[in-house]
Amino acid sequence: MVFLPDGRALIAQRRICDLSILEIASGILTPLTGGPLCVTEGDAGLHDVVLHPDFRTNHVVYVSFSTGTIERSTIAIARGLLQNDVLVGLTTIFTADAYADALQHYGGRLTFVDEYLFATIGDRHHDDRAQQLSNHAGKIVRLHDDGRTPNDNPFVDQKNAKPEIWSVGHRNPQGLSVHPDTHELWSHEHGPLAGDELNVVRRGGNYGWAAVSYGWQYLGGPIGRGIVRQAGMEDPLLVWTPAVAPSGLLFYSGDVYPEWRGSVFVGSLVRKALIRLVLRDGRVVLEERLLDGIAGRVRLVAQDARGNLFIGNDEGDLLRFKPQQ
Amino acid sequence: MVFLPDGRALIAQRRICDLSILEIASGILTPLTGGPLCVTEGDAGLHDVVLHPDFRTNHVVYVSFSTGTIERSTIAIARGLLQNDVLVGLTTIFTADAYADALQHYGGRLTFVDEYLFATIGDRHHDDRAQQLSNHAGKIVRLHDDGRTPNDNPFVDQKNAKPEIWSVGHRNPQGLSVHPDTHELWSHEHGPLAGDELNVVRRGGNYGWAAVSYGWQYLGGPIGRGIVRQAGMEDPLLVWTPAVAPSGLLFYSGDVYPEWRGSVFVGSLVRKALIRLVLRDGRVVLEERLLDGIAGRVRLVAQDARGNLFIGNDEGDLLRFKPQQ
Repeated sequence: MVFLPDGRALIAQRRICDLSILEIASGILTPLTGGPLCVTEGDAGLHDVVLHPDFRTNHVVYVSFSTGTIERSTIAIARGLLQNDVLVGLTTIFTADAYADALQHYGGRLTFVDEYLFATIGDRHHDDRAQQLSNHAGKIVRLHDDGRTPNDNPFVDQKNAKPEIWSVGHRNPQGLSVHPDTHELWSHEHGPLAGDELNVVRRGGNYGWAAVSYGWQYLGGPIGRGIVRQAGMEDPLLVWTPAVAPSGLLFYSGDVYPEWRGSVFVGSLVRKALIRLVLRDGRVVLEERLLDGIAGRVRLVAQDARGNLFIGNDEGDLLRFKPQQ
Repeated sequence: MVFLPDGRALIAQRRICDLSILEIASGILTPLTGGPLCVTEGDAGLHDVVLHPDFRTNHVVYVSFSTGTIERSTIAIARGLLQNDVLVGLTTIFTADAYADALQHYGGRLTFVDEYLFATIGDRHHDDRAQQLSNHAGKIVRLHDDGRTPNDNPFVDQKNAKPEIWSVGHRNPQGLSVHPDTHELWSHEHGPLAGDELNVVRRGGNYGWAAVSYGWQYLGGPIGRGIVRQAGMEDPLLVWTPAVAPSGLLFYSGDVYPEWRGSVFVGSLVRKALIRLVLRDGRVVLEERLLDGIAGRVRLVAQDARGNLFIGNDEGDLLRFKPQQ
């Protein structure tokens, strides 16, 4: 979900590959034609939608979606023009080399940091790929707004490395956002059994999967050698054990809820809650679980221009928090 | 640390095996003679002091301490009379069958639940003992106030089982307290590498160590089969990963800090912070780290009769929180 300058929102509904305009006050949802064709089984579908930083003048929007076939799918990014409520010229600008028969672990979150477009690519349920530079699975990639590869990406000069790669060793990141003050890129990802992570994503950083992890195999047993840290790999800022299954990531910067200004919000699929984090000097000093157990499987967190806070869940609810008294 | 009816406090200083009376206003510490003889190397020493529920009339106090020799030590509980600032008649009422050459993992926390005295016994760095009923290591025990074994303890009729055992499968619990509303017994314990746990301790419950754990071997590799849950074993209420090294456990019931009423406080040795937890319907919905990184290695958390909150650390500081404005 992303808010348009006129106060309406663009909403991507993953399972039905639907991109619609939502008028908040009335709740009227107007589907757009001209959206992507998605693979829509399992976890596949339409994953995210963001606006170009210059959307007011250039009207460019970006979507990420599962593509290929049900038997062999990957994730792609397309951009198009949204003018007068019509989406035109949608064109794929990046298709991840992350094909798999599993309909899982797409990642698929998009965000702009300054003029660069970042996207998370899941490991596609192939543990071995996330540490290999020769493919895009388990990576975060960095692109120009037209899909070209920036020539200052960390691995552009490395033989057999995909030049779009910004960071490696991710499992299934479903949250990506830029810190409004530091302009750092933040992401979170699903661990295997437990060991979900919140990370500050640095240029060329290795986030460990599947060499080191705070999680376990689902059927028992360690990940890799069963260690949680290794030289040359980044330690997470926060670990969630047991898992919360994080989805959606927002730095709240509004004034509608003054006590929450500066908080980091993360949706939780399995906990069915909205997680609020407060950081001080780069450390998490408070973690709160709002609507704990009753929020549904929270998939998105968003704020409008005024600072109203919204969450959306897999059950199809979109909720707005009341202003604090 | 425990408060006396006259507003002064009894303080146990682990490393020097000192039991003293502290006058809060002046800070004057008056050592008591007649205290226990402790082993005081490593983690050994004087671990806890509590009052009998009828202390006002019977003047009985209890201490837990490391005993034996430096080469082969265990943990014991003694009781004595504290009258007119003199401690007399200190007598050992329980000596755990938990001897080891390691000077670590004593546990050692005491609390009364109604008329029963509960004590935590660490696994003494012998992973295999915590699941065996034939010794006291890695257990919580339940005693009458004179050290006799209650005949309704869960394993009294089981052959080769120590009758004092209340719960099994603990590693190194340094927090033990009774919930003021539910009268449940709560405890927390240090995991190995990560996987510290907060538990509600039930009669005959098995808390998993060292069969299942959310932690790892310090040198890498799984605990047991590398699973986190097993039928017949209790899942923790909360897991701390990375470790916080919890010590001290308090249900805050005072009015001095109205916003904190009902909060659960836990000291953190490695995080050097005081952790505040808020629970709702038996789930942790908020975790806050107060004085994060600057509180010293917090070993104790206590409140006086008025509700003033105190923490003590390994550096020898005793801090009182200011009332909230």
